[in-house]
Amino acid sequence: MSEPTLLVLDAAPPPRLGRLTGRVRIRSVDEAGLAAELPHADALLVWDFTSDAVRAAWPGDGPRPRWVHTASAGVDRLLCPELAGSDTVLTNARGIFEQPIAEYVLGLVLAFAKDVPGTLELQHRRRWHHRESEQLAGTRAVVVGAGPIGREITRLLDALGVQVALVGRTARRTIHGADDLDRLAALADWVICAAPLTERTRGMFDARFFGLMQPSARFINVGRGPMVVEDDLADALRRRWIAGAALDVFQHEPLAAGSELWDVPDLIVSPHMSGDTVGWRDRLGEQFVEMYERWAAGEPLPNVVDKRRGYVPSPDVPGSPERR
Amino acid sequence: MSEPTLLVLDAAPPPRLGRLTGRVRIRSVDEAGLAAELPHADALLVWDFTSDAVRAAWPGDGPRPRWVHTASAGVDRLLCPELAGSDTVLTNARGIFEQPIAEYVLGLVLAFAKDVPGTLELQHRRRWHHRESEQLAGTRAVVVGAGPIGREITRLLDALGVQVALVGRTARRTIHGADDLDRLAALADWVICAAPLTERTRGMFDARFFGLMQPSARFINVGRGPMVVEDDLADALRRRWIAGAALDVFQHEPLAAGSELWDVPDLIVSPHMSGDTVGWRDRLGEQFVEMYERWAAGEPLPNVVDKRRGYVPSPDVPGSPERR
Repeated sequence: MSEPTLLVLDAAPPPRLGRLTGRVRIRSVDEAGLAAELPHADALLVWDFTSDAVRAAWPGDGPRPRWVHTASAGVDRLLCPELAGSDTVLTNARGIFEQPIAEYVLGLVLAFAKDVPGTLELQHRRRWHHRESEQLAGTRAVVVGAGPIGREITRLLDALGVQVALVGRTARRTIHGADDLDRLAALADWVICAAPLTERTRGMFDARFFGLMQPSARFINVGRGPMVVEDDLADALRRRWIAGAALDVFQHEPLAAGSELWDVPDLIVSPHMSGDTVGWRDRLGEQFVEMYERWAAGEPLPNVVDKRRGYVPSPDVPGSPERR
Repeated sequence: MSEPTLLVLDAAPPPRLGRLTGRVRIRSVDEAGLAAELPHADALLVWDFTSDAVRAAWPGDGPRPRWVHTASAGVDRLLCPELAGSDTVLTNARGIFEQPIAEYVLGLVLAFAKDVPGTLELQHRRRWHHRESEQLAGTRAVVVGAGPIGREITRLLDALGVQVALVGRTARRTIHGADDLDRLAALADWVICAAPLTERTRGMFDARFFGLMQPSARFINVGRGPMVVEDDLADALRRRWIAGAALDVFQHEPLAAGSELWDVPDLIVSPHMSGDTVGWRDRLGEQFVEMYERWAAGEPLPNVVDKRRGYVPSPDVPGSPERR
């Protein structure tokens, strides 16, 4: 049997793939070359997860990779009807980003509660101005997205004494269904989006939603940009419908220098970095190598995306009482 | 029996004292009037805890209050040999500041780990610049000060997966003794000071100490300013002996507009606000009223300061194995 061909869509070569030397033919490809190479590949590693070239290049009914892995949690950039309808297995990088993103969210929450931006601004002006800050314990959060990232955010907030409601697509055990979101958002001090981008979640955070939130509440998005109607958020902040927001993801990335979002009041803009802690590329490379070895051995793969729903379905939270 | 006289040293009147109306004669006094009033008071509430007037005004062997309560955790500003040597009972505001300060420290730690200052600065310049941040879980912290504030900081960091060593004056159970501090500081990613200011702790964080720390480590002080030799810290940051620091307390407060500390690189300066969350004055007032009622009824008071040591001794941490 000949070596399988692994196609790697990358901007820079992935680390840790040396372990596969001699067992697989690895071919690097850029976006322009992808369509020509796809029919000849057994597996595709989407290392440049900012690319949406897979969607355009995917070879309908023709020969195609049997396995596609993306070095990201979200699969929205590559999932297309043809890939969804095929028997190609799609996997993601579940397990790499949970802890970093949850820590990042907590850092943003505490930056708001303790007014870190105000402190830095006053320091810059050499002004000693004592303010009262907010106690985090006892506040209420809604975490939208019941996958492993949303669950880790929930775990950390809970450890700090925040009352957290976790919202998924459908209610199960301790997870609230999407039909509960409006009611919960109206009571929340924090609304945190860590959901996958799907046709159901696109544009869900709009003027109507921000209008439901409390004027003292803040909104944080570490999911995907297109879930938020950015103009509506900017408007909600300017009209003081809500007290603050932080976006780590945007409709168009990188955010253009001319975007109005950079200086909307009480909005923190960060460059899609919440999950990327020192060593993350190595961890993504190691994860892929382990998955490749399973795949080559014919073993079942972890992190398989439900291509119809657009994410890796989570098992119910263990150890929790049945909710309905 | 006549009503006791409660003297209140305040800049603004304390809230919640109305509940005592008719049971106590309350006299407000400012710093200048304190010496004349002290001999006629049964109890003294140091509501303006930024004042060090008590030390100067304390009436040696003469008539004096039988009880002094300060609306603060630290008692360094009022403790003097005459007060320490007298039979006057001194109490503090233990119970009010633990959670807010621990949250504040966690906010600073995450601000460093996730580079919140860098994000805000880049946002101001409308620059999209992706950086790798640091994962907090798995890092090591040393918390100096084994009282309730240090313990709450320890609890929160531990919940986030940080390996924390708690250092007190003497080793007991899970608490390390001060003689272990140098060894622990040399291994730490975070050194956090939440200790009381005493003759043992004054100036303890100096060039020698910062020289022990790792170049990647950060130092945070939410205790009292004079524990840190400020020039040494500024020097250590400029020479990159350590990677960052945050000071919420200073040798002289408010920090003068001309102080060099405002723009030392990688130093966050905040105006002694870590414990002061919305409602804190009400909570301090309520705590005092409850303590007053005990005192008036002849019941034992909580939060009694060991005036020789300069803080309220903590019981051993329950449920922990004996360390030595």
